[in-house]
Amino acid sequence: MASPDLTDRDWPIDEAPGRDVRAVIPEDFRLRSGERLAAAEVVGRLHGPGQGPLVVVAGGISSGRFAARWWSWAVKSGGPVDLDRVRVLAFDLLPGRNDPGVTITTADQARLLAMLLDAAGEPRVEAFVGASYGGCIGLAFAAAFPERNGQLTVISAAHRTHAAATAWRGVQRRLLAFARDCGREAEGVALARELAMATYRTPEEFALRFAPTPPAEAGGPYPVCDYLIARGAAYAELTSAARWISLSDSLDRHAVEPEAVRCPLTVVGFTSDRLVPIEDSRELAARAPDLRRLVEAPSIFGHDAFLKERELVGRVLHGALSPLYATSHREIAA
Amino acid sequence: MASPDLTDRDWPIDEAPGRDVRAVIPEDFRLRSGERLAAAEVVGRLHGPGQGPLVVVAGGISSGRFAARWWSWAVKSGGPVDLDRVRVLAFDLLPGRNDPGVTITTADQARLLAMLLDAAGEPRVEAFVGASYGGCIGLAFAAAFPERNGQLTVISAAHRTHAAATAWRGVQRRLLAFARDCGREAEGVALARELAMATYRTPEEFALRFAPTPPAEAGGPYPVCDYLIARGAAYAELTSAARWISLSDSLDRHAVEPEAVRCPLTVVGFTSDRLVPIEDSRELAARAPDLRRLVEAPSIFGHDAFLKERELVGRVLHGALSPLYATSHREIAA
Repeated sequence: MASPDLTDRDWPIDEAPGRDVRAVIPEDFRLRSGERLAAAEVVGRLHGPGQGPLVVVAGGISSGRFAARWWSWAVKSGGPVDLDRVRVLAFDLLPGRNDPGVTITTADQARLLAMLLDAAGEPRVEAFVGASYGGCIGLAFAAAFPERNGQLTVISAAHRTHAAATAWRGVQRRLLAFARDCGREAEGVALARELAMATYRTPEEFALRFAPTPPAEAGGPYPVCDYLIARGAAYAELTSAARWISLSDSLDRHAVEPEAVRCPLTVVGFTSDRLVPIEDSRELAARAPDLRRLVEAPSIFGHDAFLKERELVGRVLHGALSPLYATSHREIAA
Repeated sequence: MASPDLTDRDWPIDEAPGRDVRAVIPEDFRLRSGERLAAAEVVGRLHGPGQGPLVVVAGGISSGRFAARWWSWAVKSGGPVDLDRVRVLAFDLLPGRNDPGVTITTADQARLLAMLLDAAGEPRVEAFVGASYGGCIGLAFAAAFPERNGQLTVISAAHRTHAAATAWRGVQRRLLAFARDCGREAEGVALARELAMATYRTPEEFALRFAPTPPAEAGGPYPVCDYLIARGAAYAELTSAARWISLSDSLDRHAVEPEAVRCPLTVVGFTSDRLVPIEDSRELAARAPDLRRLVEAPSIFGHDAFLKERELVGRVLHGALSPLYATSHREIAA
């Protein structure tokens, strides 16, 4: 797990205590598209103490049930999502890496999460913290299961997708399909990841980090290319083209009416995010019936700000979850 | 020539009068890289009347000697670059479509243009109008041949490249090389063009033009994808991977000291251009010794504004060239 990609995204080894929870997917379960999932179960992981309020944490399409790995600075003992005071459930996104591609919506992901909660004996989520694709799932979950969700924090995600984001992701999907068709899927995953990384970050960061030093010959890599190539290579082992196409399409298929998200809502958006324009975060906040807080911030990290802006995101998360911490503290004190 | 791509970029059939001019490339000519060109000659086209001031027009990496096609609204009788009053020389960029790839700089392109001017018996260019890659060549030409260039207008180009533009173009180059290596070059050219088009335009234009209508199945095209796919398919016949890699690399290799551009200079930049940030146009203007005008403008068309913003670009071109028109008018009246 010491690949450059994981290091870059701050995913150290998971040292948080936790246990896996599983839900068997019924034979008759169908996605909204009418398709069946190849996977037999939904797998999640409960982090933290054996008792206390339950917080669901969901991240980008590369995230999974090991939230203390992919969001290590946020989900830990004493952290913004404090594993000493709340229990955290994260889950593996479907389809799985070895599954065929499917047409899956964020509402489908919310239904699968509900199935996992049922299996874990958890009727209610006190707080849902979702970033990027996980933010979309959080909105879909809050809209579909209002009685099961206490509050929601959405970071770097909105109620709808933007045509420019669809444009970037569409090229990635066609590149993945092309490479698979050529029998060179891993190289296609690497190249598509290079493109994706260029959409996640900002021109300002690239200009600060990378000199314009030309290679000896045309076609050779410039310094910014070396970076993207390394990110792509590290990712090639982590996903399949079919899974990525499914989740990428799911992001573009995402649509939730903000008015249907009736729980207390915190929205965090970054003005440099090229996949989720700040205007869409503002519209989500403006239309949500119970907005608690809209935080707009600049960042040199663009869409990846949810992973990189520890200070700001940490403070917002701590603020949003503090009512739970108060409760949990009282329980412990009692 | 009625492909969707050409229609989209306003390239009708060339009906302007003109004649081709050619320069034989000497056997001992070497690019800065030390490489030789496979092409035997540089080919240009002289548009307009048989006499009058000479204006060089150069455009993006898809442009060529038929300036009255690729910039039909600008280069025509009575147009901003008025073929009734000036002679216009445009030229085919090297390497050619059937040539192998080379490592070529914008200074090399300027030397090849000088060779063409010599062969055409033209010691001096009264005005150079360059947009995108052509703007880079204009800067290189003005720096290398100060005695041969009267004035320069640079649109959607700067004295250096930006790391974010290099990031986007680098992915395109690796995609082109990958597809060629897979034996499916034309599909790679189409896919790389899809990516390039997404960098040329703006999120705002895509959001205005394209509905978020999802396809039936994951992997299928959304409306913005249909657009990009059509643009890519139209382009697949127009270039080779080797030529595109060479010219794409040349854009990233471009570097000219603004202080070396001593002729009267007009700079036009668009605030939505994601390949040439407005800050770089400003720096070019600030450092140029004889700046006549810096025009900054918004546009929904991003980098492609030089092709699409007819009113603004037309006015600036007319203003920059008006001293030539006055001369030419006097000559005709005399």
